[in-house]
Amino acid sequence: MQFNITAKSKTTSARTGIIETCHGRIETPVFMPVGTLATVKSLTPEDLAECGAQIILGNTYHLYLRPGCEVIEKFSGLHKFMNWNQPILTDSGGFQIFSLARLSNITEQGYSFQSHIDGSTHMLTPEKAVEIQTCLNSDIMMCLDQCIAYPAEKDEAEKAIELTARWAGRCKQAWMKTTRENALFGIVQGGMFKKLREISAESIAELDFPGYAIGGLSVGEPKNLMLEMADITLPLLPYEAPKYIMGVGTPEDLVELVSLGADMFDCVMPTRNARNGQLFTSHGSINICNARYRAETGPADPNCGCYTCRNYSSAYLRHLYMTRELLAYRLNTIHNIHYYLTLMKDIRSAVKNDTFHEFKKDFYQKRQN
Amino acid sequence: MQFNITAKSKTTSARTGIIETCHGRIETPVFMPVGTLATVKSLTPEDLAECGAQIILGNTYHLYLRPGCEVIEKFSGLHKFMNWNQPILTDSGGFQIFSLARLSNITEQGYSFQSHIDGSTHMLTPEKAVEIQTCLNSDIMMCLDQCIAYPAEKDEAEKAIELTARWAGRCKQAWMKTTRENALFGIVQGGMFKKLREISAESIAELDFPGYAIGGLSVGEPKNLMLEMADITLPLLPYEAPKYIMGVGTPEDLVELVSLGADMFDCVMPTRNARNGQLFTSHGSINICNARYRAETGPADPNCGCYTCRNYSSAYLRHLYMTRELLAYRLNTIHNIHYYLTLMKDIRSAVKNDTFHEFKKDFYQKRQN
Repeated sequence: MQFNITAKSKTTSARTGIIETCHGRIETPVFMPVGTLATVKSLTPEDLAECGAQIILGNTYHLYLRPGCEVIEKFSGLHKFMNWNQPILTDSGGFQIFSLARLSNITEQGYSFQSHIDGSTHMLTPEKAVEIQTCLNSDIMMCLDQCIAYPAEKDEAEKAIELTARWAGRCKQAWMKTTRENALFGIVQGGMFKKLREISAESIAELDFPGYAIGGLSVGEPKNLMLEMADITLPLLPYEAPKYIMGVGTPEDLVELVSLGADMFDCVMPTRNARNGQLFTSHGSINICNARYRAETGPADPNCGCYTCRNYSSAYLRHLYMTRELLAYRLNTIHNIHYYLTLMKDIRSAVKNDTFHEFKKDFYQKRQN
Repeated sequence: MQFNITAKSKTTSARTGIIETCHGRIETPVFMPVGTLATVKSLTPEDLAECGAQIILGNTYHLYLRPGCEVIEKFSGLHKFMNWNQPILTDSGGFQIFSLARLSNITEQGYSFQSHIDGSTHMLTPEKAVEIQTCLNSDIMMCLDQCIAYPAEKDEAEKAIELTARWAGRCKQAWMKTTRENALFGIVQGGMFKKLREISAESIAELDFPGYAIGGLSVGEPKNLMLEMADITLPLLPYEAPKYIMGVGTPEDLVELVSLGADMFDCVMPTRNARNGQLFTSHGSINICNARYRAETGPADPNCGCYTCRNYSSAYLRHLYMTRELLAYRLNTIHNIHYYLTLMKDIRSAVKNDTFHEFKKDFYQKRQN
C-alpha cells in the first residue's frame, strides 16, 4: 500500500491524497460504507459503484462467525465472495466483541468470548485477528485493540492503551510474516484523556505502520470532546501516513475531522438511518414518514443526482416506507450513501481548489435554511 | 387494446400472440410478476426489465388503501408513481376483500368491508372498481367478481356466478363511459362445477369484453381439478381474445395451461418463494438454506443467465439468506422472476417453431433428473 498527499488546504489541516492498494486506488478524504456481513445492507456492488464508493468496510467478528473463514477461503477472500472488486478494509473484531459478544473476557493473550448467535466459545488473539483478515484478503487490516466504554476511569484507560500497544506489536510481528500485500493499520486508544491519547499515539506510531486509526471515539461522549481528542491525536501521528477516524460520524463530523487532518471514515449512520426512513440532504436530514411527503411529486432532494432522486418522488418513497416494502430500504440507502460520498467528493474538490474554507461556510449555511 | 394471434401449436391448443396497449406490446403467453403495492417486492423497474418483464400486476385493494387514489392521481396513474413505463394489469380488489379484509359483507350493490390495516370501512361496487382502476391508469382492468372458497356448495357457486355476471354488466357499462383506452377483462367463476363454469363463460362472453379471465382456480383444489376446469372453460371463451388464468401457478401449471390455450398468468410464487429461500431451476426447485450450498462456489443454476447466477455463488446466496440480509430477497427474487419469464419466452419460441410437444417432453425430463 502507498499513500501520496496530493493537495493541502492553506487555512486548515485538510488534505487530499491517494491510497494505492492491490484492488485499486482510493482518493482521500474517503468515506467507507459499512458492509458488515459481506454486503452493504440492501445494495449490490453495482449500486455502490454508482453511488461513487471507492472502498467498503467489512466486520471481521461477523464474517468470522458467518459464513466463516473456511467458506471465504474458497473464494480467496471477500472480494470474490461478495463480487466487489474494489478495495476493502476490515476491522479487527475487537469492537464487536466488546459491544456484541456474550461473556467476553480479556487477558494478555486476547479476547475469549461467546458468539452472540449460538453461544459457541472463541478466542481472538492479535495473531488470530491478522490471520483472519489475511484470509478475508482485506486491502487494509486493523490491529486488535482494547476498546473501553465511555465514561471510563483513567486507570482503566491507561491499562487499555498499554495492552493495545503490546497487541499492536504482536499484530505487526504476525503481519511481517505475511506477504504484506494487505496493509496493516495501528489504532490509537486513550479514552477521553489527552495525556493517554498522546502516549498511545506515540507508542503506536513507534511501531511504524502503513497507516493509523483513532479508535474509541463516538462512544457516547459529547461532540466537542470527540473533536478535541481527534484534534490532539491527529498531529501526533506521522504526517505522511493516512489517518482514519473509526466509526464517525455525521456529515458535520466529517467536515470538521477533515479540517483537522483526517483522511478516512466509516459509519453505519447513512445505511442504518436509511432503513429508519431518515434521508440526508444538503439542508439537513428529513424523515420520509412525514405526512408532508404523502402526495409530494418531487424528489426527496431536488439538488441530488442519485438514482433514487432521479427516478422516484418523495410520495413514492414514503409509500414504500409506510408499507415496509423491501425496496424502501434500498432506495433510501442509495440516497444516503450517495449523499455521504458526494459530500466527500465535494470536500476533495474544495481542498484541491483551496476553497475548503468557503466550502465549509456554504455547508453550514445551507443547513441553517 | 388489440390482440393478434401470431402462431398456433399443431399438437395442442397453445398459441402465441401480441397484445398492444397504450404502454407497449406484450408477447403472449406471458407471465406477469405481482407488484401488489406498486412494487414487485425488492425489485426496481430496471431489475424487472433485465429479467424480461413485459407487464406487471398491481392489486387494486392494496393500492386503494395505501397510498390511495388521491396520491396516485397526482402522478396520472401507477406507471409514473412507481417509475414503470410498460403495461400494468390490475385486479378488481374482490379477491383481496374475500381473503384479507375484515367483516366483509356482500350485497347486490357490492362489497362493504373493513380495511385489514386500520379497520376503516369502505364500499367497493363494480362501478367503483372501474373508477379506481381508471385512476390507476391500468392498461388492463378487471371486472369486480364474487370469489368463493373451496370447497363450496353448488348453490352458493351458482349464486356467485349470477352476481358476477350482473356485476360484469355494470362494470362494462361504467367502462363504456370512459375513454376505453384502458381495456376491461371479464372474469369467469363457477367453482369446481363444470356446468356452472359453462354458464358463467357464456354469460361473460356475451358481454363482449376485450379479454377474459378465469378466476377462482388455485384456491386449494387438487391440481387435476384445476386443469379440468381450465380445460372446459377456455374453449368456451372467444378464440380471438386473450385468456388469462388468475393466480396460477407452478412452472408445470403454466406449461399445462398454455397447452390448453391460456395466454396470461400471474402468481406470487416466484416472488414469495424467493423470499423463503426457494429457487426455481430447470431441474426443479432448490432450497438455498441447504447445508450442501455452504461452500458451493458455483451459481444456484449453472444453466441460468440471470444477474444473480452470473455474479454470485450459491455459498454467497446461502450466507445472505442465513443472515437475513436484505440483498438475499432481491437476488433470489431476480433469479425466480428471470426463471419464470425465461420459461415463458422458451414456450413462445417452441410454439412459434411448432416444437412445443418436444419442449414439454424436455421440460418434464429435466425435472426428473
